[in-house]
Amino acid sequence: MCVTVVGSVAFDALETPHGKRERILGGATTHFALAASFFTDVRIVGVVGDDFGPEELAVYERRGNIDLSDLMRVPGERSFFWAGRYEDDMQVAHTLDTQLNVFATFDPQLSPAACASSSVFLANIQPDVQRRVRAQCAGASLAGLDSMNYWIESARDSLLETMRTVDAIVLNDAEVKMLTGEPNLARGARWIRELGPRILVVKQGSYGACMVTDAGFFFVPGFPLELVVDPTGAGDAFAGGFFGYLDSHGDGDPSEGCLRRAAVYGSVLASFAIEDFGSERLQRLTRDEIVTRYGEFRRLTSCEHAPLRQPALV
Amino acid sequence: MCVTVVGSVAFDALETPHGKRERILGGATTHFALAASFFTDVRIVGVVGDDFGPEELAVYERRGNIDLSDLMRVPGERSFFWAGRYEDDMQVAHTLDTQLNVFATFDPQLSPAACASSSVFLANIQPDVQRRVRAQCAGASLAGLDSMNYWIESARDSLLETMRTVDAIVLNDAEVKMLTGEPNLARGARWIRELGPRILVVKQGSYGACMVTDAGFFFVPGFPLELVVDPTGAGDAFAGGFFGYLDSHGDGDPSEGCLRRAAVYGSVLASFAIEDFGSERLQRLTRDEIVTRYGEFRRLTSCEHAPLRQPALV
Repeated sequence: MCVTVVGSVAFDALETPHGKRERILGGATTHFALAASFFTDVRIVGVVGDDFGPEELAVYERRGNIDLSDLMRVPGERSFFWAGRYEDDMQVAHTLDTQLNVFATFDPQLSPAACASSSVFLANIQPDVQRRVRAQCAGASLAGLDSMNYWIESARDSLLETMRTVDAIVLNDAEVKMLTGEPNLARGARWIRELGPRILVVKQGSYGACMVTDAGFFFVPGFPLELVVDPTGAGDAFAGGFFGYLDSHGDGDPSEGCLRRAAVYGSVLASFAIEDFGSERLQRLTRDEIVTRYGEFRRLTSCEHAPLRQPALV
Repeated sequence: MCVTVVGSVAFDALETPHGKRERILGGATTHFALAASFFTDVRIVGVVGDDFGPEELAVYERRGNIDLSDLMRVPGERSFFWAGRYEDDMQVAHTLDTQLNVFATFDPQLSPAACASSSVFLANIQPDVQRRVRAQCAGASLAGLDSMNYWIESARDSLLETMRTVDAIVLNDAEVKMLTGEPNLARGARWIRELGPRILVVKQGSYGACMVTDAGFFFVPGFPLELVVDPTGAGDAFAGGFFGYLDSHGDGDPSEGCLRRAAVYGSVLASFAIEDFGSERLQRLTRDEIVTRYGEFRRLTSCEHAPLRQPALV
């Protein structure tokens, strides 16, 4: 089993109330791949420049199951760069700078191995490109996508067309409202699922996440951390945990129980991601920590307040 | 067992995207009492004017266990009146008019029966008055309070002094941030519990509610209704379900499991309250509907996705 993720590999400059980083490894695929690698094999489809060196490569290679054969390197150019700042409440990222660089013309041709992946996740990139990648992974039994306000506004029709080709959509609540015109979560969720995708995950920031399927609504609260250092990558870490768990447990037709456990694992990975800058926390995360926090998450909504059966991680 | 609630009895003018009401029965004690009456006996301590007639009295009397002996009537004056409007997202109430009328000089002397209640809830009124009522109910084994931004700003020291005299605090997340200066929920919750109250409930609007006790955090999501008609009174209905259930199940020292079930029942009552204007939905609510929705709430966070043990309502 293997999940292929296509999207940005980047350098980020980050500033939060708890400090700053001038230039650290980031991008949606980085957070996704590190999170998913605890559950299944991962393949990154992306593009970088000359500034991407051995130190960055080592971050993925240390995990032992992240394949970089589909990571293109463009000589003489620089990698995608993003600079952002968070205010006190950590809810909204203010973009200070965006340099697309090699990413501006990103339109990947996947290797046969990537095309043959059991799952594919289309991280937040131009919806036409997402759709062309989806078409190349026609045999994937589970396909998901993320997007953002920029594409909802500037490429709405293409985004809707792409959404119709996947099984699972991951958006935040502001994006759901913008896309559907519905301030009400339940009506907005119905609108999106009527496009075709049977699984919708609505990320709700510090409030957690909500999953909607044929079986109804499932909610995972935000983990009540006293110190949130940097929210960057939380959504991608969620997606990595979610699709990584599903890829390792399914044949593309996961049970409702499996989907719900996947949503909790996604929340577990997101909760660790925000404990340090960029992907620093995921880089030093252990399987034991994941298992422990899964149990803590379950107790956050348990009325029985007794030890809960702990499922095997993989 | 009996819970005494002290606070406003009012007439409300309400305007939401789903319609309007020119003048309907409202006030914190109305929503609280109707909700709590499904679990235990209730006693209202409040004040009304000549405009409060048989039609209003009948709303409480139909429940059969709401005692109005401590509801004072002031001849020649009018009841408290509030007019508010909600925008599309139903998150924020915009006050259009407030007429305190009889409520301006409200400072109740409780009857011996009210003083002897097993529980007391100090709904959102001036904190000095809350504290004087609390002192009269010295024997209550469980005391709780609600407040609002106005008192946090204008009577902060008195509010903090009152908070130290109760077991349970109910506030919304904006009020927690304003009171503690902490944008982080976990740190804000710790700050408040260090004042003394062992139970803190943070209402999170459409995201649900969070309870913090010595055992940690417990989250109940917002019920995913497709149609929210009027959020007025949701917080008071939550408090009524919460304290009503606790009063009926405890001796003032409820177990963590009991507290968590109370938080779910509070959420159940709040979810019904917002289905219609003012208290109209609670007035026609049935015990069977409460039991059914309790099960639906439990499934919203269950990973097992199987029928859950249903506790007896009372």
